Amino acid sequence: MRTAVLTFDGFNELDSFIASALLNRVNRPGWKAEITSPTPVVTSMNGVRVERQQPLSFAREADIVLVGSGVRTRDIARDEKILQELALDPSRQLIGAQCSGALLLSALGLLENVPACTDTVTKPWAVEAGITVLEQPFHAVGNIATAGGCLGSHYLAGWVIARGAGREEAEAILHYVAPVGQKDEYLARAMAVIGPYL
Amino acid sequence: MRTAVLTFDGFNELDSFIASALLNRVNRPGWKAEITSPTPVVTSMNGVRVERQQPLSFAREADIVLVGSGVRTRDIARDEKILQELALDPSRQLIGAQCSGALLLSALGLLENVPACTDTVTKPWAVEAGITVLEQPFHAVGNIATAGGCLGSHYLAGWVIARGAGREEAEAILHYVAPVGQKDEYLARAMAVIGPYL
Repeated sequence: MRTAVLTFDGFNELDSFIASALLNRVNRPGWKAEITSPTPVVTSMNGVRVERQQPLSFAREADIVLVGSGVRTRDIARDEKILQELALDPSRQLIGAQCSGALLLSALGLLENVPACTDTVTKPWAVEAGITVLEQPFHAVGNIATAGGCLGSHYLAGWVIARGAGREEAEAILHYVAPVGQKDEYLARAMAVIGPYL
Repeated sequence: MRTAVLTFDGFNELDSFIASALLNRVNRPGWKAEITSPTPVVTSMNGVRVERQQPLSFAREADIVLVGSGVRTRDIARDEKILQELALDPSRQLIGAQCSGALLLSALGLLENVPACTDTVTKPWAVEAGITVLEQPFHAVGNIATAGGCLGSHYLAGWVIARGAGREEAEAILHYVAPVGQKDEYLARAMAVIGPYL
């Protein structure tokens, strides 16, 4: 299970790195999540420069594609070159979006009749793009999932791990990364959020 | 308030980036959190290569120093050259450590008579280093704070923001980054955790 974490200039570090760090805790042969970008170096919304691990074309080969969020997602969702390169296939791939990443899924035609979660800043743009926005942290239909609110990214990661490596693996990883002294509470809440979609 | 987020080879993306992303949401003149490393490029525990924003010497000038975690912290805490360069001053600086970052604070002599939080993997090494380890997500004494469990990093960031920019600013940022539909619950839990140390 190889994962492309789509990361563009202006990206939000929380969204790309919470997802990739959690997925890379799956200790199974072939499991690997990689920062996937159109340019060799991408710069975050806070000026952090990160070298990509895979080019954008990797998104078509990956088993899992997660779309991070950022301050430029609206422009990226209008970039025909990027949209063409991202010929995603929800019949074969698990596809998830964090916060403004939903705009990109919508531009790819993946949110037709699929309601979505997003963050409070993106919400008006998502509504304008025709997305039915849900007031909840996580939602999935079939192979397509969305999460809203930066720290909700551990729900998206948990769902992907549960779908790809099993519920027990997701529970073990969510338990490990949870704050000390609150692990059972965190895990219970996470599983209550993603459980209905497993 | 300038912040050095100490980030070394083998770093855990969650610990460096949750802290820096939250601190960079403080929208006040001079507030800036930067990835601070001994080398121009640092490589994470998952192979992500990140360009530093500041050299290690910046840690002495910064108002806030946060020590990230990683798979090489035990070695770094024995590196005399790094320890000498990190002449931190808890009378002037807010100093925080995430997970294994506590080992570095201990090596710098900053945890004498100060109990600390750390993660479950680091705990035996922390005990061996003479640290009194607490079974809770966050703890602070004066200007020195520690957090345990990767996702506990938003507590550390919240405390730093509250100390440096005020409680209202911390509450606004924690509310914004929380998952949609769970924002009040997340904020209440975070403030219950850090409130006693403000």
